[in-house]
Amino acid sequence: MGDFVFNLKHVLVVSLAMNMCLIWKISYVEEIVANKWSSWEQKLGLCFNGEKHKDHDTILATTSSAAAAPFVRESAAVINLDHGDPTMYENFWKQNGKETTVVTSSWQHISYFSDIKNVCWFLEPGLMSAVTRLHKVVGNAVTEGRHIVVGTGSSQLYQAALYALSPHNASEPINVVSAAPFYSSYPLMTDYLKSGLHKWAGDANEFNKQEPYIELVTSPNNPDGSTRQDVVKRDKGILIHDLAYYWPQYTPILSPADYDIMLFTISKSTGHAGSRIGWALVKDREIARKMTTFIEINTIGVSKDSQIRAAKILEAISDSCDHANEKDAETFFDYSYKLMAERWKEIREAVSKTELFSLPDFQQETCSFSGRTFGQLPAFAWLKCEGEVEDCEGFLRKHKILTRGGKHFGASMKYVRVSMLSREKEFRLLTQRLPAIVS
Amino acid sequence: MGDFVFNLKHVLVVSLAMNMCLIWKISYVEEIVANKWSSWEQKLGLCFNGEKHKDHDTILATTSSAAAAPFVRESAAVINLDHGDPTMYENFWKQNGKETTVVTSSWQHISYFSDIKNVCWFLEPGLMSAVTRLHKVVGNAVTEGRHIVVGTGSSQLYQAALYALSPHNASEPINVVSAAPFYSSYPLMTDYLKSGLHKWAGDANEFNKQEPYIELVTSPNNPDGSTRQDVVKRDKGILIHDLAYYWPQYTPILSPADYDIMLFTISKSTGHAGSRIGWALVKDREIARKMTTFIEINTIGVSKDSQIRAAKILEAISDSCDHANEKDAETFFDYSYKLMAERWKEIREAVSKTELFSLPDFQQETCSFSGRTFGQLPAFAWLKCEGEVEDCEGFLRKHKILTRGGKHFGASMKYVRVSMLSREKEFRLLTQRLPAIVS
Repeated sequence: MGDFVFNLKHVLVVSLAMNMCLIWKISYVEEIVANKWSSWEQKLGLCFNGEKHKDHDTILATTSSAAAAPFVRESAAVINLDHGDPTMYENFWKQNGKETTVVTSSWQHISYFSDIKNVCWFLEPGLMSAVTRLHKVVGNAVTEGRHIVVGTGSSQLYQAALYALSPHNASEPINVVSAAPFYSSYPLMTDYLKSGLHKWAGDANEFNKQEPYIELVTSPNNPDGSTRQDVVKRDKGILIHDLAYYWPQYTPILSPADYDIMLFTISKSTGHAGSRIGWALVKDREIARKMTTFIEINTIGVSKDSQIRAAKILEAISDSCDHANEKDAETFFDYSYKLMAERWKEIREAVSKTELFSLPDFQQETCSFSGRTFGQLPAFAWLKCEGEVEDCEGFLRKHKILTRGGKHFGASMKYVRVSMLSREKEFRLLTQRLPAIVS
Repeated sequence: MGDFVFNLKHVLVVSLAMNMCLIWKISYVEEIVANKWSSWEQKLGLCFNGEKHKDHDTILATTSSAAAAPFVRESAAVINLDHGDPTMYENFWKQNGKETTVVTSSWQHISYFSDIKNVCWFLEPGLMSAVTRLHKVVGNAVTEGRHIVVGTGSSQLYQAALYALSPHNASEPINVVSAAPFYSSYPLMTDYLKSGLHKWAGDANEFNKQEPYIELVTSPNNPDGSTRQDVVKRDKGILIHDLAYYWPQYTPILSPADYDIMLFTISKSTGHAGSRIGWALVKDREIARKMTTFIEINTIGVSKDSQIRAAKILEAISDSCDHANEKDAETFFDYSYKLMAERWKEIREAVSKTELFSLPDFQQETCSFSGRTFGQLPAFAWLKCEGEVEDCEGFLRKHKILTRGGKHFGASMKYVRVSMLSREKEFRLLTQRLPAIVS
């Protein structure tokens, strides 16, 4: 009996030791991930003493001295809301990220090719089905009879669409227009290589040439959040619909969008800007093929690592929406809608306390996805300096708020675009500082 | 005593059960990864009944009916060696991939920004240090006093360099030249947008205009593997060095390359083409800034997921080189060198059995990294059809070998470029089929 107990003790010790090893193995991986995150967050922390990038043709403003953040008083902080970095969704993914962790071994995704039978041969089949499913779940775009082209963000897809739509044998580059205020990067992306295929022709409302044109319709619009239709409405016009913000946290979904070329991106839908994944839904196979050719020449495809990650995230969102009533957990679109609604309430309250600024108003409509009735909750606030201030961007800069001025959007300098997608701390500083400004 | 044994048994049962759970948790993750890989490999399996893409401006040939592969006799198989898909390294990473597995949670890498203090603000600091370290370990490029710009593959960096180097206010686009045979994508990448900034001006050996020019120097050269220097050597000339193949599995490393702009890519150095990561080492800060601006406008940065994966893979290679003598495990460069040497031995034997073909010869030199003395082992075989065959690409196509003909490289149609980086099965079919061909 003594021997038996002794042996039993031995087995127990071995078994417990094995437990320790296994727990260590699991926690080791988690620790590595956590450490990486922590150092990364520190680096990109709230932007204090920020310095706006001076380059006139820079889309994203960069800032410096972030490392000094913890040692600077909040009143001295420069809040950089020039760009639309969607860090506001980080907290949701921290709390709900377990199902969307991606494990990639070094022998995976080595080839250039993803699906050699697809028009877009570098599109991961998993991303194709995830995109199709999410659009069906949300009801924001028709995917039947569409080709999906993946891009390194929707910027690349915009350029791919221009390449595909421009006549290649014309004597003059085709005109590209969009109704002002238009996304500040459109003129730049159209003209930065002085292309002989296409040229920026400005505000669509003022376009009166009897020439072929491509019109960009951004809806909800960047920068002002308004719902848009095409405005030129003439023969020889070709439309590109940029629907980056047509998601239920920003706008009531009214019906599935059903256009020839529709652009989307995970940067704004799920907040994963760092992955650089966008997609186009394209009706015409030949246009999809030409867009694919552009991306082939430009970057020989799109990161498979990011495509696979994006697919997993989109599938998780669809899963949570499909089982929204069964689980207690909040879906991504519930979380993001509530946060956007809260922020818009707060910024409207802040602006109402002063006569210096105003914000656009939006009509309420009922969202077919959520059943909620609400007005637009844009990713950017299109803020107007009322009264005598003519240069609103410069005025706010003096008060350490970096925004993007109206002239970049083909509009008056009395307007600025302010990102609503920042981390909580920056947004809180904004709503504290705006009503305190004295002209 | 009976109770004590009973309790001990209980504890043991609990402990063993816990072991089971933990083992299950670990194996579950590994199983998911393995399953994914297996289905992916099936999809991209050996290309039978391949069909060459007809589009004249397509860089990568695509193939169809891959799913039918297992049911087709090998003699009927079309071998697609048109593109340089580096799948030959897959086996190494399958055997040595444990340390390079990347775990990404959905709350990581959300922001556009990586390092706001860096000229290239979207470059992950981890990739910067991994690139710097690997160049030091291998001794193939000077990194001191260089800015690193990351790109979505080196194709994007080539276009970024053109954008940065071209005068933006000139009346005429700047000439871009490279000595024939040159990489077939250069003319396409230079001219596909009919840019007013730069234009393809052909073979550098024939360039005799008294005008500013940019000369591309690819060394070792794609397609023919030769070591290259610039050839125009005139005032007003600017050089870009494409060093994608300056790694010790392809060529003896003679000294650290020390040029103004040097382009590298993980596609060819480690074989991870699907991640689309390249980098430029740039001496001049202003050029690096302009290249960054190009990538900002083109794709608003580069996938962080892929940058982090690339960093981990490059660090693992450096680690294994640093400890090469301490461990039994083969380093990546040992493995890849031996495989390239074996393949070149085999293809030379195959070609020597027939008088229909010939291959270039290379001078032997001693590699400062490995200490080995060898001639070039290029990633592509620059195969010449001897005798009366004028269209070597068409001739080989009849024998179900897809290659890229010399005219795409500014050279004679008697030449073709044949990828040496395919999976083993394709390469074996090639070396069996070449000597069996009768004119």
